[in-house]
Amino acid sequence: MSPSKEQEIVAVAARLFKEKGYRATTLEDIAAAVGMLKGSLYYYIRSKEELLYLVVRDPIRQAYTRLEEIVASQAPVATKIAQAITNHMTLFHRHYPHIAVYLHDFPHLMHKLQQSVRETPKQYQRLWTTLLAQGVASGELRRDLDVKIAAYAILGMCNWVYRWYDPRGKLSAEEIAALFTRMILEGVLRPRPASPPAASEAVP
Amino acid sequence: MSPSKEQEIVAVAARLFKEKGYRATTLEDIAAAVGMLKGSLYYYIRSKEELLYLVVRDPIRQAYTRLEEIVASQAPVATKIAQAITNHMTLFHRHYPHIAVYLHDFPHLMHKLQQSVRETPKQYQRLWTTLLAQGVASGELRRDLDVKIAAYAILGMCNWVYRWYDPRGKLSAEEIAALFTRMILEGVLRPRPASPPAASEAVP
Repeated sequence: MSPSKEQEIVAVAARLFKEKGYRATTLEDIAAAVGMLKGSLYYYIRSKEELLYLVVRDPIRQAYTRLEEIVASQAPVATKIAQAITNHMTLFHRHYPHIAVYLHDFPHLMHKLQQSVRETPKQYQRLWTTLLAQGVASGELRRDLDVKIAAYAILGMCNWVYRWYDPRGKLSAEEIAALFTRMILEGVLRPRPASPPAASEAVP
Repeated sequence: MSPSKEQEIVAVAARLFKEKGYRATTLEDIAAAVGMLKGSLYYYIRSKEELLYLVVRDPIRQAYTRLEEIVASQAPVATKIAQAITNHMTLFHRHYPHIAVYLHDFPHLMHKLQQSVRETPKQYQRLWTTLLAQGVASGELRRDLDVKIAAYAILGMCNWVYRWYDPRGKLSAEEIAALFTRMILEGVLRPRPASPPAASEAVP
C-alpha cells in the first residue's frame, strides 16, 4: 500500500527540517518537494507548526505508551526509573533533530494545537510523578521526596539534553541514560563506608 | 546622577517585556515609551535581541562572578554545590521573566552577540565542571563521576525551571534549590540501613 499524501508530506517535511533546519524551511519548499502548489498543501495541513507536530507525533505517542507500560509494570522502582530515562533518551536519539525542535517550541505548539493533542508534556510529567510516588509508597525511595519537584528535576535533566546532544558524540543515548539514572538514584556524593561496629557492640 | 539614556532604554524595555511579553513588544513600543522615534533608538541599540541581552547582562555577570567565588572558596564541595544552585535559582527568581526569555533564546542570542559576550553558557558550564572535579579529587564525590555529564545534568535540572517556574508558586526559589541540592547530592533512593554485622563476625 502506498503511503497517503499526508504521510508523504510529513516525511518530506521531516527530511527538509533535518537538512535545512526547521526555521529555514518554508511551506513553499515543502510544497515544491512533493510537487504541489503551496495552496494545495493547505488542503492537508494548516501550518508549519502543525507539520512539525505531525513529524514527531508517532514517536511521541510511542514514548508515552512505553512510559505508561513502565509505570504499570511490577519491576522495582529503580529499574523502572532506568527504563523510563532510557525510553526518553532513545526517543531523543532516534528522532534527532525533530524532537529538539519540538522541545524548544512545544509551549507555543501546545498552545496552538491543544484541542487535538492527548500526549501533552503535562500528561508525561504526571506519569513520572506517579512512578516516583510508587517508589515512595513502596519504601524504595526516600519517604520525604517531593515527587512533583523530583519529576520536574528529572525531566529538566533529560529534556535539556536537546541543547547539547550530538548524535555523533562520544557517548550514546543509552550511556547518557545510564549516567543520568545513577545520578538520580544515588546522587553524586561518595557513599560513606559503613562504619565498623564499635568494639563494645561487636563483643557484648 | 541621572541614568544614561541607554540605561533608561534598558529599564523601559525590561518593564515592557514583563508587561506585554518579549515577543509582543516591538521596538516602536519601546521608542514611544522613552519618547523617541524608532530611528533614534537605533543610535543606542541594534536590535530587540540586543536589548534583551542588555536587560539580563548585569544579573548574569553577577551570577557568574558569584559562581567563580564559590568555586574558588575552601568550603566542602557539598556546601559549594548548595550555594551554586541557590545562586542559580535566585538569579532566576529575581529576574523573572527576563531570564526565562534569555534561557529560551540564548542559542540564537549568543550566535548574534558572541563577539561581545564573555559570560557564555559554555563558560558557566566549565565552572560547574571544575566544581564537580574538585569534589572528585578531594574524595567527597564518587570517584567514577562523569563530571561533564553531571554538570549538564545539573544545569538541565536548574535551567528547565524556566518552563514551569511560577514566582508566586507554593515553593520559593530557595526551597526549590534545597530540594534540587539534596537530590543531586544523595539521589532519590532511600538510604539502606547499615546492615548489622553477621553473628559470626560479631562474635569471633
